[in-house]
Amino acid sequence: MNVLCLLPVNETQSERLCAAVPADTVTFVDRDVVSDEQIAAADVIIGNLAPARLNAAQNLRLFQLNSAGYDKYAAPGIVPEGAIMACATGAYGQSVSEHMFAMVLAMMKRLPAYRDCQREHDWRDLGPVTTFVDAQVLVLGAGDIGTHFATLASAMGAHVTGMRRSAVEPRAPYERMATMDALYDELGRADIVFSILPSCDATRGLANEKFFAACQPGALFANGGRGDLVVASDLIAALESGHIAGAALDVTSPEPLPANDALWDAPNCFITPHVSGWYHLPITLENILDIAIENLHHLAAGEPIRNAVTL
Amino acid sequence: MNVLCLLPVNETQSERLCAAVPADTVTFVDRDVVSDEQIAAADVIIGNLAPARLNAAQNLRLFQLNSAGYDKYAAPGIVPEGAIMACATGAYGQSVSEHMFAMVLAMMKRLPAYRDCQREHDWRDLGPVTTFVDAQVLVLGAGDIGTHFATLASAMGAHVTGMRRSAVEPRAPYERMATMDALYDELGRADIVFSILPSCDATRGLANEKFFAACQPGALFANGGRGDLVVASDLIAALESGHIAGAALDVTSPEPLPANDALWDAPNCFITPHVSGWYHLPITLENILDIAIENLHHLAAGEPIRNAVTL
Repeated sequence: MNVLCLLPVNETQSERLCAAVPADTVTFVDRDVVSDEQIAAADVIIGNLAPARLNAAQNLRLFQLNSAGYDKYAAPGIVPEGAIMACATGAYGQSVSEHMFAMVLAMMKRLPAYRDCQREHDWRDLGPVTTFVDAQVLVLGAGDIGTHFATLASAMGAHVTGMRRSAVEPRAPYERMATMDALYDELGRADIVFSILPSCDATRGLANEKFFAACQPGALFANGGRGDLVVASDLIAALESGHIAGAALDVTSPEPLPANDALWDAPNCFITPHVSGWYHLPITLENILDIAIENLHHLAAGEPIRNAVTL
Repeated sequence: MNVLCLLPVNETQSERLCAAVPADTVTFVDRDVVSDEQIAAADVIIGNLAPARLNAAQNLRLFQLNSAGYDKYAAPGIVPEGAIMACATGAYGQSVSEHMFAMVLAMMKRLPAYRDCQREHDWRDLGPVTTFVDAQVLVLGAGDIGTHFATLASAMGAHVTGMRRSAVEPRAPYERMATMDALYDELGRADIVFSILPSCDATRGLANEKFFAACQPGALFANGGRGDLVVASDLIAALESGHIAGAALDVTSPEPLPANDALWDAPNCFITPHVSGWYHLPITLENILDIAIENLHHLAAGEPIRNAVTL
C-alpha cells in the first residue's frame, strides 16, 4: 500500500510509523506542498488534507484525519466513494481537557481580570472567588475529552454529571449521567456547564437565550467543542445581566473571531483562539500516530476501522 | 473569660462561636472600630489586631491570629508578656494552594498571554504548551499549603518533591522529600518550583541569581509565600534571558507593588495582588473559627495551644 502521511512528524515518529507497516511505502510530505500525483497514488492518507484536494484521490481506501471533528468533510462527495474516513477521537482528551480546565479554574480565581489589572499596574483586590470543591459540574458530551475534563474536576473535589445522547450507568469520574432530554433541568443544577459537543443539526444554536435562562444565576459556562453551539448575542446578554458569571471559550463562530466582534469585550468572557488541541501538547501527535498505525493494521487485516465516521 | 472577636463573621458563625464557649463572654466588633477599653478587657483576642493596638491589652492570655504568617508581630514587645500568640496555620491550605495551582496551570497554557491578545482582539496562536503530566514539581515549604498544592499537582499527573527544614520520609502526595541543604541540586531537577516559604532570616533573598541559575532552563517559578524571598532584579534578569520561562507571583516586596516597579512588565511574569488567602474562599473563615474554638478549649483546660508561635 501507498501511505501518504501529512502529519508534522519528527524523525523518531516517522521511523515509528515506517517500522509499524514494513510492507507499505510511506511518503512523508507537508500538506501545504503535497502534489496531486501523490494524492492520486495514495491508498491511505494520514492527516487533514484540504477537502477540495480530495478530488485528486484515485485509489483511496482510508482517509485518517488528525482531528476529532470532521464537519468540514461531512458534505456528500468530498470523501471519495469506496474510501473510509476515520477521525482522531481519543487523541485530544488530555490536551483539550487540560486547556479548558485551566480556563475554568482561571475564571473561578478571577485570573483574567487580575491579568487586566496587572497590565494597568493596578494592585487591586477583586474579592471573593470560587472553587471546584463541592461544585456541581455538568459535562455536555461525555466522551473522551469530556471525561478527561470530568476526571480533573472530580480530582479537585467537584461532583460531575455527564450528559450523552444515550443513557448509560454512571461510573467514575461521573456521579450521575443524564440524557439530552433532561438538559434544561440539569442546567439548573450546575455551577459549571462545560460543553464539548460537536457541530451538528442538534447542537447548532443550542446555547441560546432559553439555555442560559435555564442555568443557575452565577453559573460559569465553558465551550471547548464548536463555536456554533452558541448564539453569541444571547451569551453576551446573559453575561451583561450577570446571570452567567463568566464564560470560557476556546471556540467561536466564525473563526477567527473578527476584530470588531462584540464577544471580545463581553464582561467576564475569556476567549482563547481555538488552541486547546492541535499539536500544542506533544502527546497529541503521538496519540494520532497510535490511531493511524492501529487503523493501517485493521485495513491490512480487513478488520473494522477504529473511529470510522458514518456520514 | 472575655473573648474579643474581630473576625468578619456572619450570624451563623457568631452563634457557632458563642455556643462553643457558653461560659465565656464573646464580644464581636470590627477591628477598625475596636476601642482601647475593649482591648484592655479582653482575655482572648481573635483576629489580627494592628500591632500598635496591642499596647492597650491588660489581661491578654491568648492572641489568636487569623493569618498563617505572624512576621508583623515577631518583634520583641509587640505581644504582651504572659500572652500566647497562635497563628492560623492550617486554615489557608485550600484557598492559597488552589490560587497558586490555578496561576501555574494558567502559565503552562499561556493564558495570561492569551488574555493580553484578547484585549487587543488578536486571534493569534501562541504555540506549544506544557502540562503537569509527568512534570517534576518542587515544593519549598511542605506544610499545610504546600502539601495541598502537591496534592493538586499530583492529581494532575506530576511527580512532586517536598522540601522541609527537617528530614522526613516521603508519603503521598510526595514521591520524594529533601531538606534545604539539597536546594540547589533539587532546583536543577524541577520543571516547576513552588515556594510557600515564610519570611525569616534563612529565606529573605533566597531566590536570587544563584537560585535561578540553578534552575533548569525553561522552569516555571511560583511564589505564594512572602515577597521578600525573591531578589526581584535577579528574577527579572532570569525572565528576560528566558532561562526562567515564567513566574507566577501572588506576593511581592514591597506590597502593594509600586505602579512604576519593573516587575509588573517583566516578560512572562504573572502577578496577582496577594489575594490567594484572606477570606476569598468562604471555607477559610470557617477553618479559622475551628482553630479559635479549639484553642479556647485548650486555654480553658490548661492544655497546649495549637499553632502557638515561639518567637
